Amino acid sequence: MHLIHPVILCGGGGTRLWPLSRKAKPKPFLPLVEEESLFQQAVHRLAKDSSFAHPIIVAGSDHVDLIESQLGQVEVAKLVIEPVARNTAPAIALAADLLPQDSIMLVCPSDHHIANPEAFRDAARAAAELARDNYLVAFGIAPDRPETGYGYLERGEALKGGYTIARFVEKPDLSRAQAYLASGDFSWNGGIFAFRAGHYLEELATHRPAMALLVQRAVEKGISEGKRFYPEADAFAAIAGDSVDYAVMENTARAAMVPVEMGWSDIGNWSALADALSHKADGDGNLAKAGTADFDGCSGVLTISDGPRISAVGLEDICIIVSGNEVLVTTRDGAQSVGKLPGAANQ
Amino acid sequence: MHLIHPVILCGGGGTRLWPLSRKAKPKPFLPLVEEESLFQQAVHRLAKDSSFAHPIIVAGSDHVDLIESQLGQVEVAKLVIEPVARNTAPAIALAADLLPQDSIMLVCPSDHHIANPEAFRDAARAAAELARDNYLVAFGIAPDRPETGYGYLERGEALKGGYTIARFVEKPDLSRAQAYLASGDFSWNGGIFAFRAGHYLEELATHRPAMALLVQRAVEKGISEGKRFYPEADAFAAIAGDSVDYAVMENTARAAMVPVEMGWSDIGNWSALADALSHKADGDGNLAKAGTADFDGCSGVLTISDGPRISAVGLEDICIIVSGNEVLVTTRDGAQSVGKLPGAANQ
Repeated sequence: MHLIHPVILCGGGGTRLWPLSRKAKPKPFLPLVEEESLFQQAVHRLAKDSSFAHPIIVAGSDHVDLIESQLGQVEVAKLVIEPVARNTAPAIALAADLLPQDSIMLVCPSDHHIANPEAFRDAARAAAELARDNYLVAFGIAPDRPETGYGYLERGEALKGGYTIARFVEKPDLSRAQAYLASGDFSWNGGIFAFRAGHYLEELATHRPAMALLVQRAVEKGISEGKRFYPEADAFAAIAGDSVDYAVMENTARAAMVPVEMGWSDIGNWSALADALSHKADGDGNLAKAGTADFDGCSGVLTISDGPRISAVGLEDICIIVSGNEVLVTTRDGAQSVGKLPGAANQ
Repeated sequence: MHLIHPVILCGGGGTRLWPLSRKAKPKPFLPLVEEESLFQQAVHRLAKDSSFAHPIIVAGSDHVDLIESQLGQVEVAKLVIEPVARNTAPAIALAADLLPQDSIMLVCPSDHHIANPEAFRDAARAAAELARDNYLVAFGIAPDRPETGYGYLERGEALKGGYTIARFVEKPDLSRAQAYLASGDFSWNGGIFAFRAGHYLEELATHRPAMALLVQRAVEKGISEGKRFYPEADAFAAIAGDSVDYAVMENTARAAMVPVEMGWSDIGNWSALADALSHKADGDGNLAKAGTADFDGCSGVLTISDGPRISAVGLEDICIIVSGNEVLVTTRDGAQSVGKLPGAANQ
């Protein structure tokens, strides 16, 4: 039985979850849904199962201390410290270069919530099987609404445990999203992937040869310090950043997907968090997730405060976040644009 | 030319303007509309005109220091310090007992906003004339909406500069308020009155004889310290408190009113404050009255903060108040119930 090697990516900024998510302590490291942070959930949902090796963590240098403190007693294979952020394709390539070439990698964002980790692990094993057959495998999340903020995967031919991917669709408009949902042939691209390390690097060399070379050079000239690995900064900084979707998945002839229903949310904004927490809300759908709140004539209100009491009157579907010297009040519909607020953009 | 003697009542709690208005520094002493507090506005709109004597201020002992500091260089006739609050009828009687009995008193709340002080002073002079003719005179505010939160005065026979009051109506329901507004025969009772001091005390002795006696005793046994006057506490505390409307105005046969349009607002709640400040709002009707705020897709939003930045997204007709360890977010419609929130009620 070959172990699956988790690669946990910690690059997400989470500016739409400002003012709680800030540069110094962004979204993955916040206890948004449970008492553990999303990063800790990502680590722990793999650590309890013998299918998975110790994870490789890929992160920016600003968050190394945070990561090591949040890992606690959990062992990691490596902590790869990016000198600069260059998006997901190079981050995954760093891990692929550091692993034996026949290893199966399971690439996981560190800032998603998965209500059903058992279903996640089952899908990971199915994806690993397809990756051993030289597929580049994406998790295809069962959609439950016509979301326009995600990429979609269209199912192709059936494979053992999954499907080929007939088509990638970037964020569709509402009418197309509704058609995708109705058809049953489309899944959300959840940013979770399984690859054979060597296969990923071969495809990267084909579709982004300069990137593949620069990552290889950054790893060759990199420095190990205990579990920490520092890729060489000049080579890595010279990379033109790109996502794994654009650089590899949309170009390969070997794209596959495993369908999965696992209570997934990317907690992409305050409204998504309110959805993920809705089972904890009171009879009117109100929830004081952190801190004290009084609700009068409210429904669907989520409050989070690091100190001050929040009093809400007559509100419907509103999120109120009090953090440090910032107070955010947003409608559910407005939550998507929080990242563009002056406070979030000019940190 | 006889001077008019202003009597400024500082008893209002202003709990509907919590969390800015608090027990230690309630509504009259806050700079809600202008840079001056409402109390300072009440004093200054009389101090600049030779028709008016130095005012008598009636206040609770908790706020004496605040009053003296906010008065600055403005001279007062007396500062009457109530040992306990017993509503407006006894408060006015204290001042009436301390004045020569033929003086004309102008009773003014300290927590209202008047956009046109010239119109206020003209109405005060007209009311004083009627008071000299032994009328108990209320200001009749021209209504501009079917407000259900105020008392109404129905006009009777024409007098010089005013009308008799045919009827007092307590807070009507909406359909009656709409009918009153349409008829043109009704004014709001703004809580501003002109009385001859001796006449007020005679009417009080007729309609509330116990109250009149106890006030008289509290004044006889009271103590002067410079401008300060302390009514005797036991006698005053024994009074069954009542409003001037219930105790005197609704019982006298000599009730009159002067009609006035003066840009009046009692700033009764956050929605009323937003209305009073609407001329300062931006093109979308948003206003950061105090502190910094960023608005994105908002209209009709009022923010007040004593420190933290407020970021508002997608909101319509909402008031956001950040003060000390309290954050209030209320709809305009909900503003009326803010005083019943746990934070406001359990100070």
